[in-house]
Amino acid sequence: MKGKMRAIKLFCDYEPKKEYRLTHYELTTKKIWDSSSVWRNPRVEMVEVDIPQIGPRDVLIKIKSCGICGSDLHFIEYDEDNYMLYPGHGRFENIILGHELSGVIVEIGSEVVDFKPGDYVTAEEMTWCGECVACRNGFPNQCERLEEIGVTYDGGWAEYLVAPAKLCWNINGFKEIYKDEKLLFNVGATIEPNSVAYNAIFERGGGIKPGHRVVVFGCGPIGLFGISQLKKAGASKLMVFEPGEGRRKLALEMGADKVFDPAEIENSGNRMEDVILEETNGQGADFYLESSGATEVTMPSMLNALSVNAKIILVAWPPKPVPTDFKKMFPRASQIYCSMGHSGNGTFENVIRLISAGMIHPEKIITSSYPLLKGIEAIEVAKKREAAKIMLNP
Amino acid sequence: MKGKMRAIKLFCDYEPKKEYRLTHYELTTKKIWDSSSVWRNPRVEMVEVDIPQIGPRDVLIKIKSCGICGSDLHFIEYDEDNYMLYPGHGRFENIILGHELSGVIVEIGSEVVDFKPGDYVTAEEMTWCGECVACRNGFPNQCERLEEIGVTYDGGWAEYLVAPAKLCWNINGFKEIYKDEKLLFNVGATIEPNSVAYNAIFERGGGIKPGHRVVVFGCGPIGLFGISQLKKAGASKLMVFEPGEGRRKLALEMGADKVFDPAEIENSGNRMEDVILEETNGQGADFYLESSGATEVTMPSMLNALSVNAKIILVAWPPKPVPTDFKKMFPRASQIYCSMGHSGNGTFENVIRLISAGMIHPEKIITSSYPLLKGIEAIEVAKKREAAKIMLNP
Amino acid sequence: MKGKMRAIKLFCDYEPKKEYRLTHYELTTKKIWDSSSVWRNPRVEMVEVDIPQIGPRDVLIKIKSCGICGSDLHFIEYDEDNYMLYPGHGRFENIILGHELSGVIVEIGSEVVDFKPGDYVTAEEMTWCGECVACRNGFPNQCERLEEIGVTYDGGWAEYLVAPAKLCWNINGFKEIYKDEKLLFNVGATIEPNSVAYNAIFERGGGIKPGHRVVVFGCGPIGLFGISQLKKAGASKLMVFEPGEGRRKLALEMGADKVFDPAEIENSGNRMEDVILEETNGQGADFYLESSGATEVTMPSMLNALSVNAKIILVAWPPKPVPTDFKKMFPRASQIYCSMGHSGNGTFENVIRLISAGMIHPEKIITSSYPLLKGIEAIEVAKKREAAKIMLNP
Amino acid sequence: MKGKMRAIKLFCDYEPKKEYRLTHYELTTKKIWDSSSVWRNPRVEMVEVDIPQIGPRDVLIKIKSCGICGSDLHFIEYDEDNYMLYPGHGRFENIILGHELSGVIVEIGSEVVDFKPGDYVTAEEMTWCGECVACRNGFPNQCERLEEIGVTYDGGWAEYLVAPAKLCWNINGFKEIYKDEKLLFNVGATIEPNSVAYNAIFERGGGIKPGHRVVVFGCGPIGLFGISQLKKAGASKLMVFEPGEGRRKLALEMGADKVFDPAEIENSGNRMEDVILEETNGQGADFYLESSGATEVTMPSMLNALSVNAKIILVAWPPKPVPTDFKKMFPRASQIYCSMGHSGNGTFENVIRLISAGMIHPEKIITSSYPLLKGIEAIEVAKKREAAKIMLNP
Repeated sequence: MKGKMRAIKLFCDYEPKKEYRLTHYELTTKKIWDSSSVWRNPRVEMVEVDIPQIGPRDVLIKIKSCGICGSDLHFIEYDEDNYMLYPGHGRFENIILGHELSGVIVEIGSEVVDFKPGDYVTAEEMTWCGECVACRNGFPNQCERLEEIGVTYDGGWAEYLVAPAKLCWNINGFKEIYKDEKLLFNVGATIEPNSVAYNAIFERGGGIKPGHRVVVFGCGPIGLFGISQLKKAGASKLMVFEPGEGRRKLALEMGADKVFDPAEIENSGNRMEDVILEETNGQGADFYLESSGATEVTMPSMLNALSVNAKIILVAWPPKPVPTDFKKMFPRASQIYCSMGHSGNGTFENVIRLISAGMIHPEKIITSSYPLLKGIEAIEVAKKREAAKIMLNP
Repeated sequence: MKGKMRAIKLFCDYEPKKEYRLTHYELTTKKIWDSSSVWRNPRVEMVEVDIPQIGPRDVLIKIKSCGICGSDLHFIEYDEDNYMLYPGHGRFENIILGHELSGVIVEIGSEVVDFKPGDYVTAEEMTWCGECVACRNGFPNQCERLEEIGVTYDGGWAEYLVAPAKLCWNINGFKEIYKDEKLLFNVGATIEPNSVAYNAIFERGGGIKPGHRVVVFGCGPIGLFGISQLKKAGASKLMVFEPGEGRRKLALEMGADKVFDPAEIENSGNRMEDVILEETNGQGADFYLESSGATEVTMPSMLNALSVNAKIILVAWPPKPVPTDFKKMFPRASQIYCSMGHSGNGTFENVIRLISAGMIHPEKIITSSYPLLKGIEAIEVAKKREAAKIMLNP
Repeated sequence: MKGKMRAIKLFCDYEPKKEYRLTHYELTTKKIWDSSSVWRNPRVEMVEVDIPQIGPRDVLIKIKSCGICGSDLHFIEYDEDNYMLYPGHGRFENIILGHELSGVIVEIGSEVVDFKPGDYVTAEEMTWCGECVACRNGFPNQCERLEEIGVTYDGGWAEYLVAPAKLCWNINGFKEIYKDEKLLFNVGATIEPNSVAYNAIFERGGGIKPGHRVVVFGCGPIGLFGISQLKKAGASKLMVFEPGEGRRKLALEMGADKVFDPAEIENSGNRMEDVILEETNGQGADFYLESSGATEVTMPSMLNALSVNAKIILVAWPPKPVPTDFKKMFPRASQIYCSMGHSGNGTFENVIRLISAGMIHPEKIITSSYPLLKGIEAIEVAKKREAAKIMLNP
Repeated sequence: MKGKMRAIKLFCDYEPKKEYRLTHYELTTKKIWDSSSVWRNPRVEMVEVDIPQIGPRDVLIKIKSCGICGSDLHFIEYDEDNYMLYPGHGRFENIILGHELSGVIVEIGSEVVDFKPGDYVTAEEMTWCGECVACRNGFPNQCERLEEIGVTYDGGWAEYLVAPAKLCWNINGFKEIYKDEKLLFNVGATIEPNSVAYNAIFERGGGIKPGHRVVVFGCGPIGLFGISQLKKAGASKLMVFEPGEGRRKLALEMGADKVFDPAEIENSGNRMEDVILEETNGQGADFYLESSGATEVTMPSMLNALSVNAKIILVAWPPKPVPTDFKKMFPRASQIYCSMGHSGNGTFENVIRLISAGMIHPEKIITSSYPLLKGIEAIEVAKKREAAKIMLNP
């Protein structure tokens, strides 16, 4: 397809901090593992660019919805030295953002057999090569040549997106459950963050047994989606710690059994572990999902309220090393897992099935949606962190 | 406690079939692995016996409820040669039956520290020694000196029962959710069969991932409890095959998404696998729970509708060798697990938590309850297989 | 590269048996799941054909060694109705055979980055698409569009082979351990069958714990390679049942602790399970690798000598349904896995590491090697089943 | 048995540090979780005491060998404030030390059926009750009422020991492989520390796949036994970091492929991760066993050289919180396990099988053995940390 389209771009300056040792990978690809040490002066702009062209194994997606993610905000926000806040992987020199997306296929490459124009789809953001050793060994999220939609190449805050067909998942089945098309695509655009939570909980963490008692820290979208999944997996008591009142309310709607305000606990002279121990008759929680990123604060509480064989799953990246008192884990036969990505292992497929079956309802946390052209304004609203999930609809 | 009590006893004759090779274990213990080859002329009788006496590590339970299990019926029923139908483990010469039980502790042994008189409890039926190699290695259901309440020693179709304290589980917490005491204890008495299903699905079979598509064959209590657990664990489509109309209805109440009558399928010229494949877009089911025992019939259907990496869990014992076309499993990377028992691995604990949290509702399948004194009559009703679960209340 | 090359082709007639229901997949691809029901009158011929041309993501390999596999023989041999013996997957109308191969890369496609001309390589036979749902979910051996080198498209009984680069594995490191180039490549060509055994044991079967007691049935190459791997994984007692005297000797060389001739056991009035039970103090074996294909005979022996939590791994396809007395598995908490293929999960990588470290020695079972031009003669020798492994060297 | 015996006792003063919050468990049992915060002025003495009496489920063992463990030294050594160095669990007021033991049964309790006088045995040190929830759920090392031989009650630095029969393991089979009785019992006394390593590696950590590349930090006995087990489990490259030259030499004897002196690496301007990355072609190690306790130093090296899906197993307790840069774990899909104890899961059984099969040789690290009566002197020698393993022979 030829023509122009509107899109929201991020521009940054490549200024590695002196103390940051760039690896060979980073030097040769400009994909940086700690973006906060390299990308400076981030700024977003609404631009007009050519509609991108597909290769033989790609599809062209007319974007219908694309979310604003917490990571997106960290790409845009910066510290006192004007360095990007985001401590993860990215190539941000000049890129269309947006990686939680859905839309309609409008063109397919000559070798594409699994999709046809008109298909409703979402796409994995992790763009695994499929041929490196990590990919061949079943770890697409650890692809040695990892690219990421809206993070290392152009994403979905745009009217059109080119994606490899192998990343796309058909959501035509949503038509049976979501009669409103806008809602359908907004929900479709949440499959990516849902899958990040699912990958952390069920693939990396091995999931729970029905009856387990579970704690979630932090109610950004990953935490909230994690809550609904954990409840559907049979958590018999789901405790949530979150400072924001609105988000605590959402947590209850998503399936939390009990929500707690950490500040209030502190004010009452208690610690979070006291609450967890009380709620579990002193046994401690069986499963922790750390999606707050404030791991320095939550780690001691987790370590002091471990059930026997408890699992701790970190899905939010702690920006700095966390003092971790492993001594507490030995008598409890416990473990810590770190989770990145969402690809592989049936994750997208299972999330789509759960939504199609009406078992999880991501729409509950969609606060509002804006036309793409009001995207810059929407970003400003999102920066206030009052909303759970804001969508852009090109 | 001294005195007399009423109880229902089973009497059998020990007449090993000629072709049955008794093992050393069987000869020395009279615990027979294939009871249908040894125990003859089973007959039940209401008797009056002494209230049993506790040892230092036992508790005396005043029985409040005890279920009639499908196995109990197979203990009592016999074939054309008057041999017991039950093909499993048992010592049935002279025994009080009943192994799905709940009650109130009325006495504790001198070394018991985890319970006190007045505690509401249920008990594991599997009586593991805790000291043999299998027990030490974490396989209590495979105890080398396995005894079983109501199967190798006196059970719960009685006013009182002596059980080792280590088999008991506290259900005082049920008081918060079941205000009716009779209902509370009837539900308490279903923890054992619930745990048989849970052990099969989650411990032996490793459970499902939320979103998986699941098939259950057979809607006796194990199948029905399995259905409610699988749905709570996140099955996105739960298909059930069961010939009995009433049981199909119960399956829907317990959480099945679709129920099918095998006879009707056959009449329409189809096979069960055709239905499963159609319901799963040709992918096949991810998880099978075989609780019908008609494995000769269900196995081919399972093998022809396997998803990639599908699991088949047999929880009902097929009485005879089953012709199994393993060829079908190779391209699907599939596996078969057999499950016996319910002890260990947090199973009782998790089932109790799920019930306490109001997440599973065993009472939905309790058809009726009879006073113990009408137990013989209740057994006759149960033999008709129209009811799901009949309870005796001493 | 242009020019002619010599190769050994198989020709068959496509004559589906009347009772065989061809699936849509089979009809549209001519890839047949039960080849013994469709492919008739197999015949091999030495031919001269064009050297094949590479695509952008392929490599051209100058074949240095290619094994004759038991499956190859079943492709060529036929029953009384002239149907091929092989009961598995294949498209055999007109195909160069050979799938256990090694060689030197002589050309690479324009998009290939992981290999360069001169690299010593072997290749996976399973040709997974990398884009279907099974592949995306981490099951390349279950690829929905599976092709197989030397089984559905031209293989390695030829001077040159075209293979997708993503299937190749670098074995340059073998130069340090194998100074003789012919030996190096002969060993390189055994990585494929080694990986079939490894996939069955360690990926599908989850491996053993050091100290486990293990039984292997059948000492074809898969069984023999399995033996060496199981010993290296810590089997404390490795028992092998194999009728061929020469193969029993090889089993000992590969690491078996005890070898038994099933015929001799039978003659002495015993059964194989008696031997296993005696060797394990009555506990039974922890792990079974069934690589004989005579599963109808071995299954009862396995089921009668199961340790608690024993695993049975079928890697040889039983041609017919096997009467399986699952009753024996319940009290032993046991399971059966079926394994096909060798791709994914680090399998090729780990096998290559083990050989590079001198920890397993596949050369011990290479009986002889023939020039490709004497391939037809070599096949005749192989058909006698006296040799373990015969290689062709183009 | 009546009479007197010689034994080595530890005496301490119970003086909880002010800042240490004693839990209810600690207050009521005097079993302290952080002994270094409570037990003061430790001193050992050779004493004469009554031979202990057995209960109905106990055995009386005539001790033949008992090791001096690194923990034993930490029980005896103290800091500048005279507090015991050991940061773990113990009740040290007045106790016979020694928990790595072997001997001959001389008396059995009235209910003991698995042992008879004359049996050669070793015993688990972890004394699990078998009846608490943790025990019932299969976690004996996490027993809620955990006692420990030689740590919370009288141990094996004595002529006789009473142990519950359920903790004992028969080693009569060693007679076939160790003809020298003293050697037999010395090896028997190493089963306990061998099992600590085995539990960490194979039970808690899930073991390795053959071909994996492995790093061990620290070559005390746990590290050295871990090395021999990991090699027997198929590690294709086993790298060891240890400052002591003698211990590095032992590491090679136990199966290490490469040993490194951390000081030397540092002197050359490198870090340990540089070495690991170089030895693994930049891929990082698949499995880490941290048995040095200097986790503050080793953690950064591990985190910078993680393979995809790498496992870190901590078996030595880091005395203080360790700053842990989890950010490094996300892109590598990695995890950390902490391991305590040795009971359950077939661990003792498998270790005994490996020794009986001549597959691991604990005697290689036994430096010397002393008569019990020279025990105080032996302890002084052990304190120098020049020896690997010193045994006491009563």
